[in-house]
Amino acid sequence: MLVGNAIVGQSGGPTSAINATLSGIIRGASRCDSIKKLFGMKNGIEGFLDEEIIDLSFLFHDEDKLSLLETTPACALGSCRKKLPNLDTPSDVFAKIFEIFKKNDIRFFFYIGGNDSMDTAYKLSEYAKTIEYEIRIIGVPKTIDNDLPCTDHAPGYGSAAKFIATAVSEIATDCAVYKTRAVTIIEAMGRDAGWLACAGALARKYNGMGADLIYLPETPFYDNEFISAIEKCFKSHPNVVVLVSEGIRYENGEYVGASKQSGMVDVFGHRYLAGTAKNLEALVKQEIGCKVRSIELNLLQRCSSHILSATDISESVAIGKRAVELADSGQSGIMLTFVRKESERYEIDISCVSLEKVARRVKYVPRSFINSEGNNVTEECIDYISPLILGEMQIKYENGVPVHIRL
Amino acid sequence: MLVGNAIVGQSGGPTSAINATLSGIIRGASRCDSIKKLFGMKNGIEGFLDEEIIDLSFLFHDEDKLSLLETTPACALGSCRKKLPNLDTPSDVFAKIFEIFKKNDIRFFFYIGGNDSMDTAYKLSEYAKTIEYEIRIIGVPKTIDNDLPCTDHAPGYGSAAKFIATAVSEIATDCAVYKTRAVTIIEAMGRDAGWLACAGALARKYNGMGADLIYLPETPFYDNEFISAIEKCFKSHPNVVVLVSEGIRYENGEYVGASKQSGMVDVFGHRYLAGTAKNLEALVKQEIGCKVRSIELNLLQRCSSHILSATDISESVAIGKRAVELADSGQSGIMLTFVRKESERYEIDISCVSLEKVARRVKYVPRSFINSEGNNVTEECIDYISPLILGEMQIKYENGVPVHIRL
Repeated sequence: MLVGNAIVGQSGGPTSAINATLSGIIRGASRCDSIKKLFGMKNGIEGFLDEEIIDLSFLFHDEDKLSLLETTPACALGSCRKKLPNLDTPSDVFAKIFEIFKKNDIRFFFYIGGNDSMDTAYKLSEYAKTIEYEIRIIGVPKTIDNDLPCTDHAPGYGSAAKFIATAVSEIATDCAVYKTRAVTIIEAMGRDAGWLACAGALARKYNGMGADLIYLPETPFYDNEFISAIEKCFKSHPNVVVLVSEGIRYENGEYVGASKQSGMVDVFGHRYLAGTAKNLEALVKQEIGCKVRSIELNLLQRCSSHILSATDISESVAIGKRAVELADSGQSGIMLTFVRKESERYEIDISCVSLEKVARRVKYVPRSFINSEGNNVTEECIDYISPLILGEMQIKYENGVPVHIRL
Repeated sequence: MLVGNAIVGQSGGPTSAINATLSGIIRGASRCDSIKKLFGMKNGIEGFLDEEIIDLSFLFHDEDKLSLLETTPACALGSCRKKLPNLDTPSDVFAKIFEIFKKNDIRFFFYIGGNDSMDTAYKLSEYAKTIEYEIRIIGVPKTIDNDLPCTDHAPGYGSAAKFIATAVSEIATDCAVYKTRAVTIIEAMGRDAGWLACAGALARKYNGMGADLIYLPETPFYDNEFISAIEKCFKSHPNVVVLVSEGIRYENGEYVGASKQSGMVDVFGHRYLAGTAKNLEALVKQEIGCKVRSIELNLLQRCSSHILSATDISESVAIGKRAVELADSGQSGIMLTFVRKESERYEIDISCVSLEKVARRVKYVPRSFINSEGNNVTEECIDYISPLILGEMQIKYENGVPVHIRL
């Protein structure tokens, strides 16, 4: 039996649920006999290299603080975007990391992150095989983008999807108050995969007000088809709401957000990256000439922890707890995954997959989730997302604003 | 005693609380013996001119529907931006409006709106004096901008302020996860008055994470002072968060959002209105060269009814009820107002003021609410806003998204 200390880090872009997974790991570690102390690395592997670690044991069994942590947005331990070198590149960074592991008797390593973070965990687990130091390396998924392969969905996606469904329903309701023709273009995150924009369909289905058109990076974008689709919508109502992924592209691969559509140049003549919705706003203004507005959901879609999916948060805690159990049982070099059961009611199992299979790979929205015109999603897509946004968390407020915890 | 039908309309930009005031008027009318039927005008006075009116009596005493209405965003009756002609201009519009009043035996007229809508109500009440038809004309305030004079604050402001305080705290928490220097510029609405941006200070005070710098239209903006202020912030932390009103201006009166700062021109050579935060993003990039991001809160600040101030909603309902009582008691040509009592605990009275005194006038943020450098707000400002965002509403969700009512 391996006994020693454990360390947990958070890496990549924040989500509203990454602290819930941290809480799950803390909860798991507090009940695991093999783990003596649980450390947290500040700012992921980058801070770890500077030995910026804190003892998280003060949180063990502190139900109030752990609950607060589960509804605190962003990464309570800080984050980083550091990429480790390839294992065949000469570098002393791995030796240094393992030196700090040894010095602190760290035998369990948990890294919560997305595609790039799984690459970090994978390299560490591969390096570990080459040296005489036993350590279990575990990747725990998180990403609002939901583009991690091998898992039914990623922790963090459900809360982001709930925010988007809610925000789109509210914006569509707001835009419907006037009788004059207007187009509102909402931009969701998603550079390569359109999972976040898909969530806008839930607004239409369950609230009655949502996006008329949804465009994802998975199918090519055509200006003329876009304008025709809006004009078709105008036949039934004067306020058209469009939801686009930031990463939609023309057939030639060029990003709509980077296109010269708007023809903007700055004082140095540089082409200006106006943003996807902003460029489409200019296009609609030019081609249709009606009132048009663009709205970037921006950071709020990943940090609006005042509106969380209770399903997402409880799953995020559970996957953190399970990560500790799997490490304790001898697993290493794995990422945890959600497996949706083939049952009528939504149920998941937590399983795992070799890190090698997920590192730096992307899961796209399947074609069957997108309608034939490429301007909306199908019922199959809605059925997939619907259970992930269910349930609301009790948020603690003081003086009218949410209470968050700082570590 | 005047007995007849009543009508209510909503006008101007939507807020998260304008339907709560509508609910208050419905609640008031259902208990008022002088009111036989309560009609709602679709799309304000514009729809009324087309006789688009609906009978709202089906909502009388329907507690479930009224509760839902109170947490439904935007204007359930639709809105308009129609401006009535001046009374000394030849026009048949007033005669037409009063003809429809007579035809439907409308004796009580309630108009929920901001500065421009109060102008409409004022003109109708002045016209009413010139003819032989008794009708009581009542203006009921709403505006997230909080720029209506003669009232301590406007219904709708508290909920918008609560959203802004919460969103700014979440964005600031999200931005603080990396160690690298970065500036995040958040843009709140407010073309002339900076009340909404002021709310960002509550995030800092009560959540610990908020805007480092706040700029309002009430004081002139200087590029060089802005850059120096950011550099000063960098001395204590690497992530600087700035909150600006969309309407901030240079000393010469030019809007920062319209400036040639970014030097953008479109394909026709037209100057491009990039937006205030977007222009400041370009300025910071040029002058400091660090990572910089701009975020427009956009429509969400006025329609995020999933996070409401319970104080705002209960006051918005109360002012609607009181409007009916005052009309019943013989008042006309008035706008209802909130008067803050001189008590230690926050308490308000509902009073009224002649419409003439409010129509098309603007209440600015007083100088004593702004610090001497013009880059933040004072404790006096925070003390003013704090009670307005208190309390949370129970929001009804189905299938993971909020339930709204459609009329």
